[in-house]
Amino acid sequence: MATVKTIKIEESVFADNDTAAESIRRKLTEKKTTMINVMSSPGSGKTTLLTQIVKRLGSEMRIRVMDVDIESTLDAQRVADATGVEALQIHNGGLCHIDADMVTRALEQFAPEGSGVLEQTDLLILENIGNLVCPAEFDTGAHRNMMILSVPEGDDKPLKYPLMFSVSDLVVINKIDTLDYFDFDLEAAKKRILRLNPNAVILPASARTGEGVDAICDWIRGIVKVNGQR
Amino acid sequence: MATVKTIKIEESVFADNDTAAESIRRKLTEKKTTMINVMSSPGSGKTTLLTQIVKRLGSEMRIRVMDVDIESTLDAQRVADATGVEALQIHNGGLCHIDADMVTRALEQFAPEGSGVLEQTDLLILENIGNLVCPAEFDTGAHRNMMILSVPEGDDKPLKYPLMFSVSDLVVINKIDTLDYFDFDLEAAKKRILRLNPNAVILPASARTGEGVDAICDWIRGIVKVNGQR
Repeated sequence: MATVKTIKIEESVFADNDTAAESIRRKLTEKKTTMINVMSSPGSGKTTLLTQIVKRLGSEMRIRVMDVDIESTLDAQRVADATGVEALQIHNGGLCHIDADMVTRALEQFAPEGSGVLEQTDLLILENIGNLVCPAEFDTGAHRNMMILSVPEGDDKPLKYPLMFSVSDLVVINKIDTLDYFDFDLEAAKKRILRLNPNAVILPASARTGEGVDAICDWIRGIVKVNGQR
Repeated sequence: MATVKTIKIEESVFADNDTAAESIRRKLTEKKTTMINVMSSPGSGKTTLLTQIVKRLGSEMRIRVMDVDIESTLDAQRVADATGVEALQIHNGGLCHIDADMVTRALEQFAPEGSGVLEQTDLLILENIGNLVCPAEFDTGAHRNMMILSVPEGDDKPLKYPLMFSVSDLVVINKIDTLDYFDFDLEAAKKRILRLNPNAVILPASARTGEGVDAICDWIRGIVKVNGQR
């Protein structure tokens, strides 16, 4: 079993989240590290999909994962075991989101100044808390936001959680292998997302069958390439 | 289309949520109105299941529904249209939960003193925001908490969102018609829930096929009977 480091980060110190987020982004850009913040509901298949992505991209870029969970170490352990990448578990003391200050403190432990960890990381994936409300409100300092909506959740979710869809650069519609089983109108979902966020990239996928995962990897390659010309 | 009243309730005034919750509960008990707070992830099938429940119980008790949503009126409208009960939509301004003060203010509008609305309500259903984190932290003044975990979300959710399972009197495991399709171990899920909350009642169900819905109605009948001997 891969070793996963767990740290506990509870309350936030900085009042100005946006300033803290900009500072993270600037630092990561300097180090040519691209950070992607991944958000979704509980049970959308986030960890399974990330595992698939890391497996495919792991031979061409150096990836590290930070998993935020309320208490358990399940997610970081799953990703680390399946892919062999270094994963950090962040316990946030029951909070419903992660903000830029928490990311700053996590990075201080995961990639302390002088350790060379960021210099050796092309892609840093932040797996946020499973929640469609609160994480959308906090800029984490990531270069891009990716969110996962799964077919069993329903095509009305953009109407109910508009901010999440508005702040996401990539919306993956996951579990499309279950489309026959659920009453989910893919075209209606796409229209609702684009109405909130005309620039959103929308990619249907199935972490289980692997369908669509290559397209997600291509999107990530594009982002990493722009940020990370080493 | 049934008419649904929408109100907007944003920030909370009372610091002491537990006192406010006790005051709601005492008032409702005096009026012989039973309130059940229903929580779940987004897309667990909460509204569909509640519609099924209201249809079955509507001939034997007087039911009203309060739906909390960030922006849309989808849920209240769906319940009202399908069942004919009076539904109130509460918009909470993007907040991730509803607390006792918000319920107090919603009740002031939905059932003002002297209107007789509470006296004419046996069961008041509060459909909380779709979120497994924040709603668990606030006593809403309900007599019982019911939460819905759906099969596609996975059997590990009690490990990841322990507080939600700890505060719920009834855990419905919904969408069991999809058990063959997902990797969900029903017995493992039950064990994990009972480890957190040995008194939890756990009822598997499918809002789509109707399986298990009668058992949920029986549980609700029992609660309403205890609180509401008119």
